[in-house]
Amino acid sequence: MLRLALIGTGNLGIHLATACSKQPQIQLVQWIGRTTQAPKHPNNIPYFTEVQKNIAADLCIIAVQDDQIGAVAEQLIDIDSCIVHTSGAAHLNMLRDCKRSGVLYPLQSFVKDQAVDWTNIPICIEANNATDLATLEQCARALSTKVFKLSSQERATAHLAAVFANNFTNHMVHIGQALCAQEKLPTKLLDELLKTTFERATNSLAENKQTGPAKRNDVATMEQHLKQLDQTKKNIYNAISKDIYNTHNV
Amino acid sequence: MLRLALIGTGNLGIHLATACSKQPQIQLVQWIGRTTQAPKHPNNIPYFTEVQKNIAADLCIIAVQDDQIGAVAEQLIDIDSCIVHTSGAAHLNMLRDCKRSGVLYPLQSFVKDQAVDWTNIPICIEANNATDLATLEQCARALSTKVFKLSSQERATAHLAAVFANNFTNHMVHIGQALCAQEKLPTKLLDELLKTTFERATNSLAENKQTGPAKRNDVATMEQHLKQLDQTKKNIYNAISKDIYNTHNV
Repeated sequence: MLRLALIGTGNLGIHLATACSKQPQIQLVQWIGRTTQAPKHPNNIPYFTEVQKNIAADLCIIAVQDDQIGAVAEQLIDIDSCIVHTSGAAHLNMLRDCKRSGVLYPLQSFVKDQAVDWTNIPICIEANNATDLATLEQCARALSTKVFKLSSQERATAHLAAVFANNFTNHMVHIGQALCAQEKLPTKLLDELLKTTFERATNSLAENKQTGPAKRNDVATMEQHLKQLDQTKKNIYNAISKDIYNTHNV
Repeated sequence: MLRLALIGTGNLGIHLATACSKQPQIQLVQWIGRTTQAPKHPNNIPYFTEVQKNIAADLCIIAVQDDQIGAVAEQLIDIDSCIVHTSGAAHLNMLRDCKRSGVLYPLQSFVKDQAVDWTNIPICIEANNATDLATLEQCARALSTKVFKLSSQERATAHLAAVFANNFTNHMVHIGQALCAQEKLPTKLLDELLKTTFERATNSLAENKQTGPAKRNDVATMEQHLKQLDQTKKNIYNAISKDIYNTHNV
């Protein structure tokens, strides 16, 4: 049985608590958050609003925003458990003042009230010693079939790649949908195209599936497009089009 | 029975020929292309390398690149059929010198040797008169269940939206995959995230699914990301991040 303490009640904290409480190999011994009321959760996890000095856990997982990891870690320097952050971007050495430290980064975008299938989420783990890495691997494998041992540098790259693959693709879809809405066209006009786009990009490399005016340097069409955009969207259009052209023609 | 002449043997031309030849309501009476050898196609469509003066068709469909539509249309000014282009970006009046004119724009990205499900492809149609519009609708409905009557301006918007939804999302995925490959990480690390991203973006509005450092103005993470990128990718990162922040915070 793996004993876990969890700090954080944001999107990731709640998703982690829900996923862990479903695993018989994992016992959530404490959940710590800033909100006075304990968040809803399936099992009866002891909830506290401040870090407890007597955390009797194998892993103490910090699921808070990156800029708060340091402040939380400061309160954990006397704890004997392996202190683990869940950030894609933060280096392992952010926890250097803790007795033992590690990282457990689930490469997924978590939004409120939307269930995710943990089985397929890649979980990237890192630790300072083999024992803690083994414990982290045990925890990660209880949640997912896809566990990767990545260094802090590799994880930073994976996180940046995820920003392009999720945050930026999502914003591109938003701009497309917003353009349709402005012209009072149904946004579902784009659904079949989105379906094809995603299927192709994951079944092989996206590079081989590129089409459009930027790739074929169709200047007339691009000029017509730019006329329909405000300056901020023009900047996005030009920056991406230039890079598409360079990727496929230079 | 709808008689069709088809001009063009590029990606769209071949996909259209394949789709039309499967429809009992449509007869492909002529296929015209620049390549001396007729492209492979399921039925025995008469193939020519030059426009024939005696085109006996209800619709003459021009499936060529936008910058070639004008030159092809010039050769069709004496033809009695309704001359139809298939461009998202080109105005209907590009065919103003033809006796009758229309547009049939399938909103999909066509790549070579990759079958598409025409039933769900939105087909946007436009014509100068009700009779030709009815003929175009008959043709579009034979191919797809999703037919939209759009003006040239509405179609231009739909096309621009499609560039963001397909071309630009695909390039974002490519950058993510390329970053992984540079660091010798498996690109499949991103597959589950991509699956979630596109499912969410199509099941509701992408605007409501945005996450990431730009939305929450996590400056430290963004600065760390920028250090990992070359100048061209930095420009893309900054332009999109700024717009994500403005969309969600201003």
